[in-house]
Amino acid sequence: MTLQAQQSSLPPTIEWRDGTLYLLDQTRLPRECVVEAVGSVEAVWRAIHELRVRGAPAIGVAAAYGLCVAMRHEPTDPRDTFLARLEAHAAFLDSARPTAVNLRWALERMLSRARAESSATGAALYEALVAEAKRIHQEDIELCARIGEAGRALIAPGSGVLTHCNAGALATAGIGTATAPLYCAHRDGVAFRVYADETRPLLQGARLTAYELQQAGLDVTLITDSMAPTLMAQGLIDLVIVGTDRVAANGDVANKIGTLGVAIAAKHFGIPFYVACPSSTLDLRTPSGADIVIEERGAAEVTHLAGQRTAPEGIQVRNPAFDVTPHTLVTGIVTERGIVRAPFEESLAALFANGAAA
Amino acid sequence: MTLQAQQSSLPPTIEWRDGTLYLLDQTRLPRECVVEAVGSVEAVWRAIHELRVRGAPAIGVAAAYGLCVAMRHEPTDPRDTFLARLEAHAAFLDSARPTAVNLRWALERMLSRARAESSATGAALYEALVAEAKRIHQEDIELCARIGEAGRALIAPGSGVLTHCNAGALATAGIGTATAPLYCAHRDGVAFRVYADETRPLLQGARLTAYELQQAGLDVTLITDSMAPTLMAQGLIDLVIVGTDRVAANGDVANKIGTLGVAIAAKHFGIPFYVACPSSTLDLRTPSGADIVIEERGAAEVTHLAGQRTAPEGIQVRNPAFDVTPHTLVTGIVTERGIVRAPFEESLAALFANGAAA
Repeated sequence: MTLQAQQSSLPPTIEWRDGTLYLLDQTRLPRECVVEAVGSVEAVWRAIHELRVRGAPAIGVAAAYGLCVAMRHEPTDPRDTFLARLEAHAAFLDSARPTAVNLRWALERMLSRARAESSATGAALYEALVAEAKRIHQEDIELCARIGEAGRALIAPGSGVLTHCNAGALATAGIGTATAPLYCAHRDGVAFRVYADETRPLLQGARLTAYELQQAGLDVTLITDSMAPTLMAQGLIDLVIVGTDRVAANGDVANKIGTLGVAIAAKHFGIPFYVACPSSTLDLRTPSGADIVIEERGAAEVTHLAGQRTAPEGIQVRNPAFDVTPHTLVTGIVTERGIVRAPFEESLAALFANGAAA
Repeated sequence: MTLQAQQSSLPPTIEWRDGTLYLLDQTRLPRECVVEAVGSVEAVWRAIHELRVRGAPAIGVAAAYGLCVAMRHEPTDPRDTFLARLEAHAAFLDSARPTAVNLRWALERMLSRARAESSATGAALYEALVAEAKRIHQEDIELCARIGEAGRALIAPGSGVLTHCNAGALATAGIGTATAPLYCAHRDGVAFRVYADETRPLLQGARLTAYELQQAGLDVTLITDSMAPTLMAQGLIDLVIVGTDRVAANGDVANKIGTLGVAIAAKHFGIPFYVACPSSTLDLRTPSGADIVIEERGAAEVTHLAGQRTAPEGIQVRNPAFDVTPHTLVTGIVTERGIVRAPFEESLAALFANGAAA
């Protein structure tokens, strides 16, 4: 039983039970908490494409199981036919969200496992695939747990912790990345308060982070993004912890739009600013944040709310989906191998030079 | 003809024409641009109470005309009856938004004018009231124009200007306060770009500022509040200019929630941060921002958007409506008497000691 399952009334983000894949539909949260059996590879593709399962780690796990769903009814296929079909399904699933790195990573790992399996029958190949998907799933749970233990001591009794967007259980198969230290501290009986930025434009903080922490019994308060500096000025925030989509070799951090403003305000008020992620998110091939391309998304996310227009027709809009927080604003990076601190160029390189792979 | 009327296709926020008060219904912007004749004192009360007219200066002007609306049909009253009725109507209008300082100020000025009028007939008193309301209206137009001229030189050709919330034409009878330098620069043919923060939770930036600047032909781009620091990092913002609800004697500035975060980010990136207001907003009786009480508003503004719930049931919420930006983050305060700069304690006191009243 995972920490998440022990603590929360929230169903697992992803579950594989009796040969069937179940996904928690995140687009319906927080108004409805619906778990759906996903019975075909097309349905898995749609669930990823439509953000019903989201968050890079969770997408990877869902895609791995998606290949199991795809191949479940072909156990009598000969090896060559099975592998050819598997590759076609993998290419199809990979197209669900082209920019999600974990999606391709998980699919390639599943393909490699199947190709390495010497059994000639589809049935044996299918069993190998299921076992590999379960391993990917279990590894993600363990990564989250280790991030949680590594960051656990950052959460002082009586403190206020601010987070932005959702790097939570809903974004992973485990207890999240930014949320992992929070869940571990809560498990240990530490009394503290979490403030969740709503995270415009897509409101992942309001819809997902506030929801999952509330369901797990944590003391969580929702604010608009613009309120965080005022709460800092009022002395209510002792620590900031956020997730990340990519960390460059110099420690610059790409994360959901709004993270940079939080980091600047934290620096202004002398509040520690931590980033949590598995070490696979540390990208030493990207020298600095200047090398990270920021995705610009459609205007409707800004001009419409809940399907209704709230801005004038024809208004110009900027909608960068991510921002880059320079390493000078980052106190530390919480990974499954411990907390990495400045100077990041050296400490990140050392993490990979010295540490065994997770 | 005002600058606003010259430039914009937007109807006046407030108009008195042929003995009738017309208000632009701001709650229906930007989807509908509707001007309504407001035919009774109860209707004026509702328009103020329901924020159909909003912004401290505009509320004051609307309330002054509201007393004219109230007394229009009682020209045959004897002096004592007229004054007694007038006082009752003023007390009623004053209850529409108890915390709006300009509301009480305008009503008291109208009462004083009526009491000072020696004519014995209601007809003469009514004429005196209309003339006084028109003076209040005209003074606000002129204050805005003078703020615009005072700040006009801040807007450099090719620059990017960020504003937050709506301290615009829609908040005044004239060309606004924070927007006044923008309208003046645009009138003079200066090419520049405005970025409007949407201003959660109530979206005055998206609904009102983006709309009125667009209608006036300015180059305006809408962003979520969380995007401003990223645009600053990208070098797109050369100047920040916002309005204010109150400036303390030491230069601390109370304004819409989110202003503090903008000011901190501007400081971080070395971008000038200006506040625009009439000198009546400079409150020397309030020593510092610590003495300004911040209104906390209801949770539904944060948990619902366009009438739909977007956050979990029962979630805790903070919703401070304003924040305080310390004077150390303020480059200058643009008033109708010129730009006041640090050290503010001295410069603000000197403004009142030396300057003739506006």
